[in-house]
Amino acid sequence: MPKNRLMTPGPTQVPENARLALAREIIHHRTPEARQWLAEALDGLKYVFQTKGDVIVISCSGTGAMEAAVVNTVPAGGKMIVLDAGRFAHRWAEVGEAYGLEVVCLDVPWGEAVNPEDVASLLEQHPDAAIVCGTLQETSTGVAHPIQEIAQVVTPTNALFLVDAISGAGVQEVHVDDWGIDMLVVGSQKALMLPPGLAFLTVSEAAWEKINAHKAKAFYFDLKSYKKKLGDPDTPFTPAHTLVAALNENLKAIKEEGIETIWQRGRTLAAATRAGVQALGLELFAARPADGVTSVKIPEGVDGGALLKDLEKKYGVKVAGGQAHLKGKIFRIAHLGIVDELDIIGTIAALEMVLDAHGYKVELGAGVAAAQRVMTSESAAVATA
Amino acid sequence: MPKNRLMTPGPTQVPENARLALAREIIHHRTPEARQWLAEALDGLKYVFQTKGDVIVISCSGTGAMEAAVVNTVPAGGKMIVLDAGRFAHRWAEVGEAYGLEVVCLDVPWGEAVNPEDVASLLEQHPDAAIVCGTLQETSTGVAHPIQEIAQVVTPTNALFLVDAISGAGVQEVHVDDWGIDMLVVGSQKALMLPPGLAFLTVSEAAWEKINAHKAKAFYFDLKSYKKKLGDPDTPFTPAHTLVAALNENLKAIKEEGIETIWQRGRTLAAATRAGVQALGLELFAARPADGVTSVKIPEGVDGGALLKDLEKKYGVKVAGGQAHLKGKIFRIAHLGIVDELDIIGTIAALEMVLDAHGYKVELGAGVAAAQRVMTSESAAVATA
Repeated sequence: MPKNRLMTPGPTQVPENARLALAREIIHHRTPEARQWLAEALDGLKYVFQTKGDVIVISCSGTGAMEAAVVNTVPAGGKMIVLDAGRFAHRWAEVGEAYGLEVVCLDVPWGEAVNPEDVASLLEQHPDAAIVCGTLQETSTGVAHPIQEIAQVVTPTNALFLVDAISGAGVQEVHVDDWGIDMLVVGSQKALMLPPGLAFLTVSEAAWEKINAHKAKAFYFDLKSYKKKLGDPDTPFTPAHTLVAALNENLKAIKEEGIETIWQRGRTLAAATRAGVQALGLELFAARPADGVTSVKIPEGVDGGALLKDLEKKYGVKVAGGQAHLKGKIFRIAHLGIVDELDIIGTIAALEMVLDAHGYKVELGAGVAAAQRVMTSESAAVATA
Repeated sequence: MPKNRLMTPGPTQVPENARLALAREIIHHRTPEARQWLAEALDGLKYVFQTKGDVIVISCSGTGAMEAAVVNTVPAGGKMIVLDAGRFAHRWAEVGEAYGLEVVCLDVPWGEAVNPEDVASLLEQHPDAAIVCGTLQETSTGVAHPIQEIAQVVTPTNALFLVDAISGAGVQEVHVDDWGIDMLVVGSQKALMLPPGLAFLTVSEAAWEKINAHKAKAFYFDLKSYKKKLGDPDTPFTPAHTLVAALNENLKAIKEEGIETIWQRGRTLAAATRAGVQALGLELFAARPADGVTSVKIPEGVDGGALLKDLEKKYGVKVAGGQAHLKGKIFRIAHLGIVDELDIIGTIAALEMVLDAHGYKVELGAGVAAAQRVMTSESAAVATA
């Protein structure tokens, strides 16, 4: 039986301390202890997201929090702009359509990054848009979008800037307050290294103003009811509080390491992964590659599905395939959370052997060596910095 | 440090096997193995709820599933009837109001049971109501409502019958198909003995017809998207799949014991608890007491808050206080999930000692003996049956 080497961009490997926290005897959720868990988690999340504003914890998947962000900020019949550059970016549009909102999409080919200038023109055409919805790290394509630059374009307008950082936050650098992000949506099962079940949402003052100015047709996702409970922090509905306790184990580790160091590790592992696969003659899919996930084109003549199956069956390495029209055309290697250098090296080594078995010509060890060179030179650069 | 003796009606004690499942290394959620988990869970839940119809699993609290039930079945501006007999029953009304629906409440004093004849009259006055919303076991009052009899009244009408069994299912007898319940809402952290984070929803054929006849303003709670994934079972959004794996541990144990036996244990423990507290001269709050929770009036002259604090501090026994206007007036002892005879006896013994310390005159051991007598006679009755 091969080991379980989870290299997907969510869920990601869950650290042992968090898993042990989940095995503890349960306590009641309306207790000073559980409120203390939540208070600690909110502090830690503010640090990771780099905000002094509110953070809301909702027991749902990341999609639920995206919906909460939209339905609370856009009045009935209102307009929203979606930077539609991948499967998950498109989910913003699906949410808006489900509510009958006017959805204006900036169509960006999958694999390319959003151009801030295009966002500016669209905002000029649609000055009545209530929100602009973007993505920090598009998990389906492996692209990191220039969120800081886009924020500069959105901030002077009346629109709020909502960013799906479900898989990005905690690996891809982001500064919610400094960059001017009004709402950042994050999931538990990505760089925060938990099982799925919790989603997080930052809310700026400007966002609260819009939220308070209209009555959302929502109950579980009514952010006003969450806001009311933030004082001595609590939640309006029974929270998945054992996940909050486990989260604190991870947040403590993140704080100890320092978020800048973690961002740097993301950059290093991403660069090493790219160097590794490129040394095997493989091509990258993303024009502007993300720090948390590397998308790689499956070479001509190789059966992508069989390749990934063999990676898993022979070596326990589980990477993600392509989604929607990219199925069979790309695969995606995650480097976020507790994924480390040897996880990446193992993945590339396994990839070399499986490609070889599938008749794709590789020089065994070439990808590994290329990844190692990046790791050693980047760590030398950090050490001398 | 006193032991953690959780005797609240949710969350309830989580069995060790489920807790260990939660500590396992995580796997990806879009895999044959995770789909197998879900398939097993659906089978087990159908057995517990006594239905051959669909069961939907949503990653949220029970409230989210109540909202999903309402928003998918009542068109905009539609009418709903709420059997408003407690804090959680009232949540149905709050959900409806959040969506601007016309909410007709049958006001029932807290502690009393809904009278099916009153439901019949209300349905005659409001033949255009799309749904009637009731509660199997009202956690805030400890009342079990006569759901089978109410269903007989609702079934001949055009309205669907929605039942909040969040804390009831798995302890209080319920037969979704035979009784004619269109949607049963259940939470993970009650008789199903998991941490919070999952909710379950049964959907009858009649309910699907209403759901399919209108377009709900919902995305995460759009039940049509869950239905589409039920074939080779999967979920439209990332599920809290580690909870599903843990659930299967509990469902296996439930199946081995048999749901009828579990319902009988609920009845026995409830009767024993009632006998125990009444032997101490305490009064019951619920006119029609539930099998999963016993609500007890705090006697004149005793500080309810201090009483419950001492129970917890001295003996580790955590029972629930009263909610809303019942705060300080009642407390609630749960007997569901893995709560067993000695948990109840320990709770009553602790209650005797703490009442004594608070100057309330008790004969030590009297409550325990009364509970024991019920346990021995009920188990004798079952043995000779």
